[in-house]
Amino acid sequence: MEGLVQNGERVDDLGRKGYRIIQNPDKFCFGMDAVLLSAFVRVRKGERVLDLGTGTGILPILLAAKTEGKQFTGLEIQADMAEMAGRSVRLNGLEERISIVEGDICRASEQLGKACFDVAVSNPPYMNRGLKNPESARAIARHEVLCTLEDVAREAALVLKPGGRFYLVHRPNRLGEIFAALHRHRLEPKRMRLVHSYAGQEANLVLLEAVRGGNPWMKVEAPLIVYERPGVCTEEITEIYGGKG
Amino acid sequence: MEGLVQNGERVDDLGRKGYRIIQNPDKFCFGMDAVLLSAFVRVRKGERVLDLGTGTGILPILLAAKTEGKQFTGLEIQADMAEMAGRSVRLNGLEERISIVEGDICRASEQLGKACFDVAVSNPPYMNRGLKNPESARAIARHEVLCTLEDVAREAALVLKPGGRFYLVHRPNRLGEIFAALHRHRLEPKRMRLVHSYAGQEANLVLLEAVRGGNPWMKVEAPLIVYERPGVCTEEITEIYGGKG
Repeated sequence: MEGLVQNGERVDDLGRKGYRIIQNPDKFCFGMDAVLLSAFVRVRKGERVLDLGTGTGILPILLAAKTEGKQFTGLEIQADMAEMAGRSVRLNGLEERISIVEGDICRASEQLGKACFDVAVSNPPYMNRGLKNPESARAIARHEVLCTLEDVAREAALVLKPGGRFYLVHRPNRLGEIFAALHRHRLEPKRMRLVHSYAGQEANLVLLEAVRGGNPWMKVEAPLIVYERPGVCTEEITEIYGGKG
Repeated sequence: MEGLVQNGERVDDLGRKGYRIIQNPDKFCFGMDAVLLSAFVRVRKGERVLDLGTGTGILPILLAAKTEGKQFTGLEIQADMAEMAGRSVRLNGLEERISIVEGDICRASEQLGKACFDVAVSNPPYMNRGLKNPESARAIARHEVLCTLEDVAREAALVLKPGGRFYLVHRPNRLGEIFAALHRHRLEPKRMRLVHSYAGQEANLVLLEAVRGGNPWMKVEAPLIVYERPGVCTEEITEIYGGKG
């Protein structure tokens, strides 16, 4: 393990099958959104999965732990992040199931092929306004500096097989734009879940499943509430965070 | 009052300002969706409001009770429903604030004028499949026999002033189509609330506010939960049903 972790990095236990992840707190650490998305995504036995903008590699690693998917590809544009994610894959001995690939979401289908994935997932940058420092790893992860919602939807539609499923976590404030972008690329929303910090507050995350070329009929699941009361997570959140191993 | 109520009809108290409504249980009675929509809608002092498909007239009457809107128009295609809604208006002495007009949603802007309302509301037929008896008042109220979601969105956009607000209650299953129809007619979703029978169940109604020509940025409010436990409504629902008079 020593050779895999570098200066300034830390290793976190993921609470699933003993898997761990390398992160650099000076750059960017994964958040609750990635964990909630991994619990929302459905991957069936033998499926091929692409993560558009994998960052630390958190989604492929969690999905490898939770599902029987065959092959996970994590696409990441930042060379240092991709390199670190690759070390996390090796740290868990997951080289046969997960490949981390350095590349641009905007050209994902060119680089990785069209209509060849069963599932695409993405925890893309959320923000398209108010950017301050466009070059930091944090800004690239959070703001639409290097790719937009439109790019993500278009490339997801292109890499998916017909009937393939796209899973997205995003901000509810952008739901109008999200539905419009999905619609443009014939990704039909089929399942949605809103995440609220408290039961009585507005939603701060949305989880979406869309099917390439699907028919228009969707389900809005029960709201996912994060906190029972200040400092105390709900049972469901505790379970998502490894309560069930 | 006697002259206003006919055979087979009944009069219900609305729990607001003593207002009542005439209904015919053999035809169609308003449901919880209309009441929840009336609580979601925001009408400011002096505004002009159009209800597309008013049925019993429940929305104009509730909104006249709850808001300081100046003028409410209820458009209804079924002659007998429009006539009965007109009697409900007279029963409450609301002739100066509410007009019931017989007419077709599909041609609302032709009949009532373009860009002349501040607010449009609609509790339209929800279903576009599985129709059995297309001629009953119930079928016309519930199924897209005489107008579709597309007609409602198009006419709402046409009758609204720029910046005018459209309020809709519908089924979450059709949310993909709803967003697409709103988008086609430049009605930008700004506020959404999902209604769940119980906190742990999927949503069965959605309330939406869209602004004609608005910018894409929306809020998903706290979920509205109907039942605390079987037979017991939540406090919020009790309040919506007149708890606050």
